[in-house]
Amino acid sequence: MLTLDKVYHAGFVLKEVARRTDLIHSTTLCPDADLYLKTENLQVTGSFKVRGAYYKISQLTDEEKAKGVIACSAGNHAQGVALAAAKNGIKSLICIPDNAPISKIEATKSYGAEVCLVKGTYDDAYEKAVSLVEERDMTFIHPFDDEMVIAGQGTIGLEILDQLSDVDAVLVPVGGGGLISGVAFAIKSLRPEVKVYGVQAAGAPSMLNALCDKKIETLDTVKTIADGIAVKTPGEHTYDYCSKYVDEIVTVTDDEVATAILELIEKQKMIAEGAGAVSVAAAIFNKVPVKGKKVVCVVSGGNIDVTILSRVIERGLQKAGRLAELVIELVDKPGQLLGVSEIISQTGGNVISVNHTRTDVDLDINSCVLRISIETRNQEHLDEIIKKLSENGYKIVG
Amino acid sequence: MLTLDKVYHAGFVLKEVARRTDLIHSTTLCPDADLYLKTENLQVTGSFKVRGAYYKISQLTDEEKAKGVIACSAGNHAQGVALAAAKNGIKSLICIPDNAPISKIEATKSYGAEVCLVKGTYDDAYEKAVSLVEERDMTFIHPFDDEMVIAGQGTIGLEILDQLSDVDAVLVPVGGGGLISGVAFAIKSLRPEVKVYGVQAAGAPSMLNALCDKKIETLDTVKTIADGIAVKTPGEHTYDYCSKYVDEIVTVTDDEVATAILELIEKQKMIAEGAGAVSVAAAIFNKVPVKGKKVVCVVSGGNIDVTILSRVIERGLQKAGRLAELVIELVDKPGQLLGVSEIISQTGGNVISVNHTRTDVDLDINSCVLRISIETRNQEHLDEIIKKLSENGYKIVG
Repeated sequence: MLTLDKVYHAGFVLKEVARRTDLIHSTTLCPDADLYLKTENLQVTGSFKVRGAYYKISQLTDEEKAKGVIACSAGNHAQGVALAAAKNGIKSLICIPDNAPISKIEATKSYGAEVCLVKGTYDDAYEKAVSLVEERDMTFIHPFDDEMVIAGQGTIGLEILDQLSDVDAVLVPVGGGGLISGVAFAIKSLRPEVKVYGVQAAGAPSMLNALCDKKIETLDTVKTIADGIAVKTPGEHTYDYCSKYVDEIVTVTDDEVATAILELIEKQKMIAEGAGAVSVAAAIFNKVPVKGKKVVCVVSGGNIDVTILSRVIERGLQKAGRLAELVIELVDKPGQLLGVSEIISQTGGNVISVNHTRTDVDLDINSCVLRISIETRNQEHLDEIIKKLSENGYKIVG
Repeated sequence: MLTLDKVYHAGFVLKEVARRTDLIHSTTLCPDADLYLKTENLQVTGSFKVRGAYYKISQLTDEEKAKGVIACSAGNHAQGVALAAAKNGIKSLICIPDNAPISKIEATKSYGAEVCLVKGTYDDAYEKAVSLVEERDMTFIHPFDDEMVIAGQGTIGLEILDQLSDVDAVLVPVGGGGLISGVAFAIKSLRPEVKVYGVQAAGAPSMLNALCDKKIETLDTVKTIADGIAVKTPGEHTYDYCSKYVDEIVTVTDDEVATAILELIEKQKMIAEGAGAVSVAAAIFNKVPVKGKKVVCVVSGGNIDVTILSRVIERGLQKAGRLAELVIELVDKPGQLLGVSEIISQTGGNVISVNHTRTDVDLDINSCVLRISIETRNQEHLDEIIKKLSENGYKIVG
């Protein structure tokens, strides 16, 4: 049974290893609200997961510690358990699906864990971990459905109340529900009038469904760029805590998450992974009432694969009309490229790349195609450039 | 004349507007050293510049304030002055060269400044600002060569000593020298045994040259991705402070800076601009003795254009052998793509894109070319994949 005592105790124990992450005020992300970011992406291991894992492991018996721990994860929990075990001086074995990003596997190894790569999905890795628990008699560290783990995550709630005593609402990412269970329990126990909202990915709304239908169900598939919260089945404990302490759960789309990631980079100079950015996405896109309120978004983690990050940035710029590829059909005569260049330059666009070709079979024999990537201020600016080009007789075909 | 009194006073005044930025311990960036990051990239406006600008403006007379201020900058100083003026309730006019990144111009406007776009370079914008000072009788806020500005930047030195009292060395980015003058003055005044190192871009070593030749010179050209410290002429005040208080100035290359930016993203989940990352580059690449020492790197800013960021990420991955394009010449018969795919899959590479073409004129008539982009763990992993492909008879031509 979770008690406020345990959460305070977790906070005391965690001083040894976890950072008391900064609460950063943002004046630009969401001008309607008085917005603060609880920066667990800047936590050691790059996510909040180390809190629950460390507290859980610290409370094992000496006998259990001697045998070591097992976990199953494709991401943050793996790194959290690996570091927590190392800091406790015990062995850890982490089962990771072999399709996990290389960077996460390497990071887990770097914290000293033994990694067992399992062919297939998370579910396959989970099966393997369960069989290894029996075989090796090690303790399984559940990523969310464990009251010690939940107590560890709850320390974030205590810190928020301490850092911003007159907070009105807290937005928390929800996957299995461990983080929000701890945060909501701590906050509602001390300040029941503070709203606690959960945010899930629209492609993985397992806890939302469970609360609506008043029972735990398993999603057939999950699909979201917020891989850290792509959980098919909520936990039993976490379901109970969410039912009791969470005001509402809302969802955000992948495009909204990508926008939030890009905004965090540009305006706050920090990296959030998809799961970490859903709370900010919910605030930016007004999924809950934030206007005029003191709102804390828990940015739960920053472990995004840089190749994915690269794609998110590009897509975000395109969506905002700040990066565009124009395909222009030109009559193949001298001066055409110059003409286009002049118009773009006069309107203040910035040319990034140019591709000029005559080999497209769809084209008139006398035409050629110019593919030009330009950086623009915003959608209106892009529209203005396109209009100017059209007015000057250039045919934009894509 | 700069005094410790003024720096303390600046610290007091700055409580109104600047963040006391977090000092974040990094265990992974530079395993040899006990490394800490003074995260001025997480400062309001995304850089330390607001400290000096705000303190300077706050100390103007009422008459001066009524007339407003002028500054010239393509970047961080523009935003610092714009915000500082707005917080003081006075007008600001910022001259910006028209080739500055659109994002920086927009950010400056968003803080309420009037922006005067000047055709040409920084020098042209500077001339324009000087002429406007006379015309409008506004006060010019120098980006670095001003003792009030230097006092403001010096508050970073006080905070470092407070946050890590047993620090051994501090690494500070150097452009015009305002930041390091303030930091070195504060630190050496209180703890003369702490080493203060400056870091410049190899393509803009103006302060290094000045200290070597014992006189201020102007560089003909500057060329670096660290645009925030691409300064041709050091200041006179700053030259004096650097001569007196800085232990050594070192330089880092653009490739080293790009690596540092990528490492900060992956390991610390934060965005640094080139100028902000030079201190970390100097630590990672052992430009000064850091082994076994408590070292603070001042990460001075995070205002990097996202399109540049995108390129830095890609280049960094390529350099580390984690992203590669292999050009493979295949005999044009069925099963060749399958064969290559199998080898890459078996060796654990991750295929990102494939381009298969038969139209290259340099090729044998029976050959075709496969361009395949793969994500790999590191250079050794990439080498292993290339070796395996060669052993199996695939000819790698690029």
